[in-house]
Amino acid sequence: MESKTGGGDWEGMEGIVRAGTGGGDCQGMEGIVRSGGREWVDNECILMHKDGNLELKNSRLGLAQMEEGSVLLRTELAEVCGTDVHLLHGRLDLVPYPIIPGHVGVGRVHTTIGPVCDVAGVPVLKGDMVTFLDVLDTCNSCLTCLVDKQTTRCPQRRVIGITCPARDSDIKGLLGCWSSFIYLPPKTKIIRLPDALPPSVFMAGGCGLPTALHAVDRANVKLMDRVIVQGSGPVGLLAAVLALQSGAGQVIVIGAPAHRLQVVEAFGVDATINIQEITDPSERLRLVEELTVGRLGDIVIEATGRPEAVGEGLSLCRNGGTYVVVGQYTDNGDVSINPHYLINRKHVVIKGCWGSDFSHFYRGVQFMARHKNLPWHQVVSKVFSLKEARKALSCIENLELFKALLKPHSSLG
Amino acid sequence: MESKTGGGDWEGMEGIVRAGTGGGDCQGMEGIVRSGGREWVDNECILMHKDGNLELKNSRLGLAQMEEGSVLLRTELAEVCGTDVHLLHGRLDLVPYPIIPGHVGVGRVHTTIGPVCDVAGVPVLKGDMVTFLDVLDTCNSCLTCLVDKQTTRCPQRRVIGITCPARDSDIKGLLGCWSSFIYLPPKTKIIRLPDALPPSVFMAGGCGLPTALHAVDRANVKLMDRVIVQGSGPVGLLAAVLALQSGAGQVIVIGAPAHRLQVVEAFGVDATINIQEITDPSERLRLVEELTVGRLGDIVIEATGRPEAVGEGLSLCRNGGTYVVVGQYTDNGDVSINPHYLINRKHVVIKGCWGSDFSHFYRGVQFMARHKNLPWHQVVSKVFSLKEARKALSCIENLELFKALLKPHSSLG
Amino acid sequence: MESKTGGGDWEGMEGIVRAGTGGGDCQGMEGIVRSGGREWVDNECILMHKDGNLELKNSRLGLAQMEEGSVLLRTELAEVCGTDVHLLHGRLDLVPYPIIPGHVGVGRVHTTIGPVCDVAGVPVLKGDMVTFLDVLDTCNSCLTCLVDKQTTRCPQRRVIGITCPARDSDIKGLLGCWSSFIYLPPKTKIIRLPDALPPSVFMAGGCGLPTALHAVDRANVKLMDRVIVQGSGPVGLLAAVLALQSGAGQVIVIGAPAHRLQVVEAFGVDATINIQEITDPSERLRLVEELTVGRLGDIVIEATGRPEAVGEGLSLCRNGGTYVVVGQYTDNGDVSINPHYLINRKHVVIKGCWGSDFSHFYRGVQFMARHKNLPWHQVVSKVFSLKEARKALSCIENLELFKALLKPHSSLG
Amino acid sequence: MESKTGGGDWEGMEGIVRAGTGGGDCQGMEGIVRSGGREWVDNECILMHKDGNLELKNSRLGLAQMEEGSVLLRTELAEVCGTDVHLLHGRLDLVPYPIIPGHVGVGRVHTTIGPVCDVAGVPVLKGDMVTFLDVLDTCNSCLTCLVDKQTTRCPQRRVIGITCPARDSDIKGLLGCWSSFIYLPPKTKIIRLPDALPPSVFMAGGCGLPTALHAVDRANVKLMDRVIVQGSGPVGLLAAVLALQSGAGQVIVIGAPAHRLQVVEAFGVDATINIQEITDPSERLRLVEELTVGRLGDIVIEATGRPEAVGEGLSLCRNGGTYVVVGQYTDNGDVSINPHYLINRKHVVIKGCWGSDFSHFYRGVQFMARHKNLPWHQVVSKVFSLKEARKALSCIENLELFKALLKPHSSLG
Repeated sequence: MESKTGGGDWEGMEGIVRAGTGGGDCQGMEGIVRSGGREWVDNECILMHKDGNLELKNSRLGLAQMEEGSVLLRTELAEVCGTDVHLLHGRLDLVPYPIIPGHVGVGRVHTTIGPVCDVAGVPVLKGDMVTFLDVLDTCNSCLTCLVDKQTTRCPQRRVIGITCPARDSDIKGLLGCWSSFIYLPPKTKIIRLPDALPPSVFMAGGCGLPTALHAVDRANVKLMDRVIVQGSGPVGLLAAVLALQSGAGQVIVIGAPAHRLQVVEAFGVDATINIQEITDPSERLRLVEELTVGRLGDIVIEATGRPEAVGEGLSLCRNGGTYVVVGQYTDNGDVSINPHYLINRKHVVIKGCWGSDFSHFYRGVQFMARHKNLPWHQVVSKVFSLKEARKALSCIENLELFKALLKPHSSLG
Repeated sequence: MESKTGGGDWEGMEGIVRAGTGGGDCQGMEGIVRSGGREWVDNECILMHKDGNLELKNSRLGLAQMEEGSVLLRTELAEVCGTDVHLLHGRLDLVPYPIIPGHVGVGRVHTTIGPVCDVAGVPVLKGDMVTFLDVLDTCNSCLTCLVDKQTTRCPQRRVIGITCPARDSDIKGLLGCWSSFIYLPPKTKIIRLPDALPPSVFMAGGCGLPTALHAVDRANVKLMDRVIVQGSGPVGLLAAVLALQSGAGQVIVIGAPAHRLQVVEAFGVDATINIQEITDPSERLRLVEELTVGRLGDIVIEATGRPEAVGEGLSLCRNGGTYVVVGQYTDNGDVSINPHYLINRKHVVIKGCWGSDFSHFYRGVQFMARHKNLPWHQVVSKVFSLKEARKALSCIENLELFKALLKPHSSLG
Repeated sequence: MESKTGGGDWEGMEGIVRAGTGGGDCQGMEGIVRSGGREWVDNECILMHKDGNLELKNSRLGLAQMEEGSVLLRTELAEVCGTDVHLLHGRLDLVPYPIIPGHVGVGRVHTTIGPVCDVAGVPVLKGDMVTFLDVLDTCNSCLTCLVDKQTTRCPQRRVIGITCPARDSDIKGLLGCWSSFIYLPPKTKIIRLPDALPPSVFMAGGCGLPTALHAVDRANVKLMDRVIVQGSGPVGLLAAVLALQSGAGQVIVIGAPAHRLQVVEAFGVDATINIQEITDPSERLRLVEELTVGRLGDIVIEATGRPEAVGEGLSLCRNGGTYVVVGQYTDNGDVSINPHYLINRKHVVIKGCWGSDFSHFYRGVQFMARHKNLPWHQVVSKVFSLKEARKALSCIENLELFKALLKPHSSLG
Repeated sequence: MESKTGGGDWEGMEGIVRAGTGGGDCQGMEGIVRSGGREWVDNECILMHKDGNLELKNSRLGLAQMEEGSVLLRTELAEVCGTDVHLLHGRLDLVPYPIIPGHVGVGRVHTTIGPVCDVAGVPVLKGDMVTFLDVLDTCNSCLTCLVDKQTTRCPQRRVIGITCPARDSDIKGLLGCWSSFIYLPPKTKIIRLPDALPPSVFMAGGCGLPTALHAVDRANVKLMDRVIVQGSGPVGLLAAVLALQSGAGQVIVIGAPAHRLQVVEAFGVDATINIQEITDPSERLRLVEELTVGRLGDIVIEATGRPEAVGEGLSLCRNGGTYVVVGQYTDNGDVSINPHYLINRKHVVIKGCWGSDFSHFYRGVQFMARHKNLPWHQVVSKVFSLKEARKALSCIENLELFKALLKPHSSLG
């Protein structure tokens, strides 16, 4: 069933977004049910099962179970991303199915139990439009957190929408964004969206933004660096945009299909190379040499998910350059590389880049607010209802869309 | 023919070294021939030909050809290293055979043309015991030198003993250490050996020291880091020693054969793993886990020359650790690695490490002077005459010796 | 009253230490009182009042008040350091007097409430000899912790022995080491002392060690760096020792009085300059130039607490060198410096260094275990009873001693 | 006498610039005199004497003296900057008066002796519009260059227009840009201006650009950093522009007078603070706190030349922030700072920043080409003839203009 936003019409979507928020009237927030002196919400969510089944589930859940310091959000927009496709196909380890998918979303504060503050120390109030870090429980107590200082590898971390089991009968089980309400446990790191930042624009960055920002931080772009990005999905696009905004002297994106590269170009990258047209890696290397007058990339950022990209990426790096590998989020097999020519003799630095921490998420929100006039509407092309989740997933999997959003509480579909 | 030093006897070698220098008497320096108001030297050197032939060549060469600012050294000791084995087998690109091998050596200043200073600005005088940077002509004028700041990748650099053609009839052609005299062109970077540093001790570091120091610089060892070194040749040994002296909390060396690991242990490393005994990489991983209480290496340094070591080395790195690849100096083929598990998810930093610059060489000399009481005599086990060059090479190739030295002007052999 | 350890006799102190631990017999641990089915301890501690009064306080405190996840330690040794002198004179801001001083100590686990693990995840058991990070409550929730990543500046952090108010009637108020028992609240970061590390050796590092290690980390000592340390108190001594062990090529310590410099020299520093003998800073500069052959310090570490040292320290730094300011822990006024000559033209990097985090503490323990054979006995020269606390303070204030320890439960004094 | 460009009219200046280049006709280049088979140029230049006297000097100089590998430029535009004001007043050490001032300029290649290449290795041809690095003779042979790697502190370096003595009778003495011809000795690092970059736009960056780029490199601006720049002269303006283009989340400039701050604002900085209006530093601190919601600057860059700015700048830095001191190029006396509050407790990093190297200059040219559409015409407001040099200097000294240019060969004045 087609979204009523009319097939990716940005203006239309904006209209719906505004309609949905009801003018910020939190007094009369939909969904609250009062009965016998207690409060309930009628929630609708998607349960994703291990076998890839998606179940639309309705339940009436009592607010009384909420913990001190917790927050209930009324979902405004939820993301459908490549991770959700991986989850659908069971490609990630240790996922406690069934889950409510959706690790990045925006919502209005519906209920807070006791005083709750955002990360800046400002109280979070009913009606605030907020987002939140999907990672819970980084422990700050283990050797990985405290001595190695690799918090994205802390074994205690859980991720909303990915590694939190859904519990139907308990409001505390609403730990995913594909749901009309989202439960934020105590200490969830909450960020109020700046007034000037429409939720739909924020979601154009979505989950790819902290990942890409982490990668660009790792790359340490200096003014006038030549940056080559492999991959033109959300992370590749955003890495290219962030590199441009970091002062790169030239940004080249290698990816496909053509419609994605057109979007990438709309953001101002200097050149794109379509791997469906230039299918021979050595020809692509030649093209990059030509575009860079023989100097190759000071920085190459891999955001493809395909192992073979790693060998090609190293060949695109200049001597002493930096290569950031951020796209290999699932095991897609091995790659064969020549360590003499591609590592030792090139004197390169290769940096893996796993996950992101709160700083990337926080600065990502700031970035979207500062650069909200970039052509983000070309990225978020369709909004679906919860019922259309499978369709949204399929559009992402087939690369039809750059990014899909789900809008619970909508009359879409 | 066996070296007269008696099979690796350090004391004996020292004796010979001292004898050879003739008590520092530069007045009566051997080898000068005066005739018709001009000066000559009778030189003996090894020419290495493209086909692997070694030719012992004698020639009488006139000092008159020396350039302003050049220096002629009377060779004290010359190194025979793994690079020379590669040269013998034609494994390096762009070598202008025939060459005089030997890129690291020590000699006494025999002649200087005009005032010449060492890098500290102190005049170099006849009789000084000096060494020199084997790299000539780093241009300091190209984009690689000046913008990328990757001087070890400057396309102009030439290396004495490796990429300088030998010219028999010209004293300016004595550009290699397997020769009774060595010609240092103007601007060669010269370092006087500290008085307290015997040449034979310096040569125990030899060409591996700047390489290993560069690698340990790249690794950026912090106090109490767990460092794992792959390889127990000269570079592996020295990387381990330098890591220990940089404050590592634990140093583990993985290598072979047993007699090399014994030397490594004599320098105080915490543990060694013999790959000839523990042949299964997964078993070696298990051992390293045990030795590090599950924490693996903060830093892993590859110094093996074998591509397959790269995959294993990554597996030995902790999340967020650093892997330095310094051993892949020639093309020994590809390695297959899983970029998801070994790069992206590990969030590692991998650093290629090519060549070394003057800073590594300079600090290497200082290091040897400061740590001259380490058991270096276990590293330099044999001194050969020029005539025995092939034999020396064969001992290195067969891993019989850690390091071999040639001593021109000796009555050895 | 003189300590019975006989004026700094290391062997004697060791003896007492062993005696005090009662052979590790935790079953019969002294100090427990059982009455009416409940357990109590009879505690003796020092209360430091705002007016500088030290009160020896005895109280019987019930274990029932202990929180889930908390630990009670039977104090083995407590440190008396320069911070305690500052506290005595009211020089630190925001101290909630009265307090129980003593921020670093060692003790045996007396009681644990529920399962408690050390930072490596290993259960902490009764009788274990442990130490702990004095900093509590770094929040891991504020912008300083999460975005700026400056956890040592987190406004929520509290420090045992410094910013925790003493509450006499509650076992949870035993938040300082000058006490026969120490209360470790839930989530206190606990480290088991390695078996091979005697508590008295660990305490020779004490509170100065994480501070010095943080400073040396900031300095990023590379092999063969020339390091100059200003100050010969505990932090200066330890910074010099850590720099030596980090591979410095030369370490020079500038300080006083002579007996401290003798200890510094016993650890192997290359040279010391006594500011009581060489009183003119320009003369000290000249001496450093002489010692470094005109090259000055690659790294200078300030550990004096005297503002005027900052100008001098900068003058001792080479062009492009690094200056770490770690000694200015209290406001001792201003210093006048010339920013043209000492900052801009020198192209130096100056790094303030505040506090330390768990990684420094953890690695500090590892350092002491690895280097336990250094002459630490020259650092810890006297052990006092709780009753002698004022005397211990006075020895520290007068620089008579390097470091003083308190030993509760002792029959000293 | 007023410039004929009409008081800062950019369009007008552009016209003149174009006129002056004679349509790129190098065949008929003005200024060549042929006589008796030899070639001469009639040169006009400014000699600056030690007493501050400016002398307009005409001489006919033979090209025959030019060295192999040297280049003679016909000057297009020369800069008048703050350094020239310092030179006029004798505030720099070791200046070998008389000199031809002008260290940054643009010119057309008039004569090359033998083949000469630019830094990219492309031959430099007659008629090319080029600029060049003003620093000659960085030695690449001393410990400062090779071990400390502080090439901007190499004692051998000479700077065209600053530390090169003028020799009237020798074309090799034309070592400054306030001259109708400029002599570039062999190995001068030459950059061809990109076709799309008008010389007048390049000169809007001028000498301040490599300095500012060096400072921003030192600052290591990350995406969304809050950057505060002290000073609104050319370096301050450019540092702010570069910080913006490096992805800063907020840039605040503190300076004066108002007309300069207006230009700064035209480049898009987020806020300016006029020190002539807000004269109390504590009030400025309050304003910055307000503008940054209490978080102060992640990065503060000092570009004022006034010592007292250093204390204020430190107060504007957040805990753990970075402070770059790039404005203290001459000795303007001392500043009094509190090392406890401003260095140690703030845990800041302070970086001096001296000079710039070729990489900054090279990337600066690239930056101007990429960002040539920024409002640079507001920076270069006046073009003077050589005769008007004193007037140009006075405009700079009085802060009437941001930047003044001299145009030899013009009929101006």
